[in-house]
Amino acid sequence: MNRFQHGGDIYDTPPLNGWLDFSANINPLGLASEIQRVLQEAIGEIVHYPDPHCKALKKAIGMYYSIPEESILLGNGASELFYLFFHTMRPRRAIVPVPSFSEYERAALSVGCEVVYFPLAESEGFDLDTEALGRCIKEGDVVLLGNPNNPTGRLLSCEDIRFLVRTVEEKRAWLVLDESFLQFLADGERFPSHYLVRTYAHVVVMESLTKFYAIPGLRLGFASMPASLRERMERGKDVWNVNHLAQLAGVEAFRLADYRRESRSMVAEEAAFLMEGLRRLPGIRPLVPSVNFILLNVHGTGKTSTALTGSMRGKGILVRDCANYPGLDGRSYLRIAVRSREENNRILQAWKEIL
Amino acid sequence: MNRFQHGGDIYDTPPLNGWLDFSANINPLGLASEIQRVLQEAIGEIVHYPDPHCKALKKAIGMYYSIPEESILLGNGASELFYLFFHTMRPRRAIVPVPSFSEYERAALSVGCEVVYFPLAESEGFDLDTEALGRCIKEGDVVLLGNPNNPTGRLLSCEDIRFLVRTVEEKRAWLVLDESFLQFLADGERFPSHYLVRTYAHVVVMESLTKFYAIPGLRLGFASMPASLRERMERGKDVWNVNHLAQLAGVEAFRLADYRRESRSMVAEEAAFLMEGLRRLPGIRPLVPSVNFILLNVHGTGKTSTALTGSMRGKGILVRDCANYPGLDGRSYLRIAVRSREENNRILQAWKEIL
Repeated sequence: MNRFQHGGDIYDTPPLNGWLDFSANINPLGLASEIQRVLQEAIGEIVHYPDPHCKALKKAIGMYYSIPEESILLGNGASELFYLFFHTMRPRRAIVPVPSFSEYERAALSVGCEVVYFPLAESEGFDLDTEALGRCIKEGDVVLLGNPNNPTGRLLSCEDIRFLVRTVEEKRAWLVLDESFLQFLADGERFPSHYLVRTYAHVVVMESLTKFYAIPGLRLGFASMPASLRERMERGKDVWNVNHLAQLAGVEAFRLADYRRESRSMVAEEAAFLMEGLRRLPGIRPLVPSVNFILLNVHGTGKTSTALTGSMRGKGILVRDCANYPGLDGRSYLRIAVRSREENNRILQAWKEIL
Repeated sequence: MNRFQHGGDIYDTPPLNGWLDFSANINPLGLASEIQRVLQEAIGEIVHYPDPHCKALKKAIGMYYSIPEESILLGNGASELFYLFFHTMRPRRAIVPVPSFSEYERAALSVGCEVVYFPLAESEGFDLDTEALGRCIKEGDVVLLGNPNNPTGRLLSCEDIRFLVRTVEEKRAWLVLDESFLQFLADGERFPSHYLVRTYAHVVVMESLTKFYAIPGLRLGFASMPASLRERMERGKDVWNVNHLAQLAGVEAFRLADYRRESRSMVAEEAAFLMEGLRRLPGIRPLVPSVNFILLNVHGTGKTSTALTGSMRGKGILVRDCANYPGLDGRSYLRIAVRSREENNRILQAWKEIL
C-alpha cells in the first residue's frame, strides 16, 4: 500500500454495479438538490473565467462565521491550501500527531520540511495531551491538528485549542487546525475555530466544504488566517484556482440550514445504528465516533486490515485500510464512513459474512 | 490598474445585459454541445472524489500527442502549473520576454525568483531574436516563452524552438513553452512542441485547455515534461487538483475533431474580417494576428488605452487594456479577442462611435 494512498478511489476497475464506497467520508445525505439545480443551470457559464476574487463566496463565508473577508482564502479543496501554506511559509519543522490525515505530512515533505510525529495512544483513547505537545513546540514550528482528528474522530475541547493558540503565539510558532469534519458534529455550530483569527496572529483554520456538502469531485475549501498571511498565500497561487461551479455551489451551500440540520441528525442516528451492529461483530472493536466515520480495531478477528479490506472489495465494498497510517500498527485498523441505513445494513451483513 | 490584473473579470458590476467580453481570449464557437452534455449528465457524480491519477485523461492526451503518460502532468488550469513549477524548482533567475503573459512573472516572483525582462520591439514586429536570447541564458535559468506569445500573437518557428531547446540543454537551464493558444492556429496540428519531451530533459510544454475548448470556468490544463520532473511536481501538490467535471470534459474534448476544425476555420475567417474593419478605423493600428486575439496600437487616436477601455466599458464591452504590461508603453496598446461575426460587428461599431 502506497504510503500516501487515500480512500475514495472508485476508478480502479469498479465492479459491474459500481463500488459501495465506505472509504471516503462523504455526507450520506448526498448532494443537496439546491446545489444540483444551481450547477445544472450554470454549466453554460463555464465559458467565462471564474471570479478571481471569489467575492460572493467570501461574503457568504464571512457572514456565516463572522470573520473579516480579508482573512479568508479560498482553495481548490482544503488540500490545496495545506500545500500552499508550506510552499509559502517553508517552515523548518512540522509536528503532526499520528495517526492523522496523511496530507499534513505529505504537504510538509513537499518542501523538505522535517516532520516530527507526536504519537497518540489507543490506550488513552487516542486523546491528545496538549500540555505535552505544548512542551515540544519550538520557535518557527508548525503544528497540524485535525479537529476532529481523522481517522480517530477525537475532538479537541475549546480549552485545549485556546491553550495551544496561546502557546504558539508565545513561542512564535504556527497552529494549523483542520476542521473539515466539524460541521458533521451534532452541535457543530458551537465549536468552529475560525473566530480565533480575529484575535490571534499565528493560527490558520482549514475547512473542506467537499465532505459535508458531498462535492469532493467539484473541489472546494477555505481557510481563515491573519490577513497578512492570506495576502502572501494569494501571491503564491494563480488567481483562478477556484472553479466557477465550485464557487456557485459554495454560495448555495451556506444557505442550506435545513440540509445542515438533517445531515447532522442523520449522521448521529446512523452512527449509533452502525455502532450497535459493529459492537456485535466478533473480534471487531469500533472506536466511539464523533462525526461521520468510525475507526475499527480488527485485531481480535485474527485477520489483518489489508486482508479484510480485500475481502470487502470482493463484495464490492471499499473500506479504508489504515495499514499506511504512521502511529498505527499497520495491520489492526480500518476506517469506515457512516452512510445511509440501507448501505449500513449492507456493510454490517458483509462483515458477518467475511468474519 | 493593478500590475497583475487580467481580462475576463465579468463579475465587477456587470451592465443589465451582461458584459460583451472581448478581454478574454476564449473560443468564439463556445462550449461544444458534446462537452455540455457530458457535464450535464455527470453532475451527480461529484459526490465522489476525482480520479487522483486522471487515468482516462492522461491516456487521451498521451494518444493525441504521442507522448508517454508518465510525462504528463494535469493541472487545475495551466496557470496552476506555472506556480507549481516555480515552487518545485525554485530557480534563481527567470527570463521572460516582454510583453508577455503576466502570470509568468507573477509565478516567478512568488518564490522570490529574480525576473529578467527580454524586450521585444514593435519596430521588429515583436519578433523574438532567439540568438540574442540564447546568449543571455545562464546555468539554472528558466526561460518562459509563449508560442504564440500573448498579447503580440508572434509565433516561434520550429527552428527557433529547436535552437532554444538545444541551448538550454547545453547550459543546463530550463525552457518553459506555453502553447495554450496553439490549437487556434489554422495549421495548429503541425506545431505543438510536446514531442520534445521524448528527447530533451530541460523542456516543459504547457497547454491550457480552457481557451480552445471554452471552459475557463471549469479549469483544465496540462504540461509535458521529463518524467523525473513530473514526479517531483506531483509531490508538490495534492492529488485531487483536477476536478471530476474537468477530467470528463477533457476526455471528451480530445475526441472533438470536427469542433477543432470548425473553431480554426471560424477564427481564421473572423480574424480576417475583424482586421479589415480595424484597419479602417482612424488612428488604430492592429498587429497581424496568428490566433484568436489581436493587439491594437491606439497611439494614433490621441487617446490612451485606459481611456478607450473606459469608453468601451460605457458601451458594455470589455477589452484588455495593456497598460499594465511591462515592455509596452503603458498607454498605446489594447488587446481584443476574435469573436463571432455579430459580436465583431458590434465592437467595430463601438470603435467607430468612440473614436
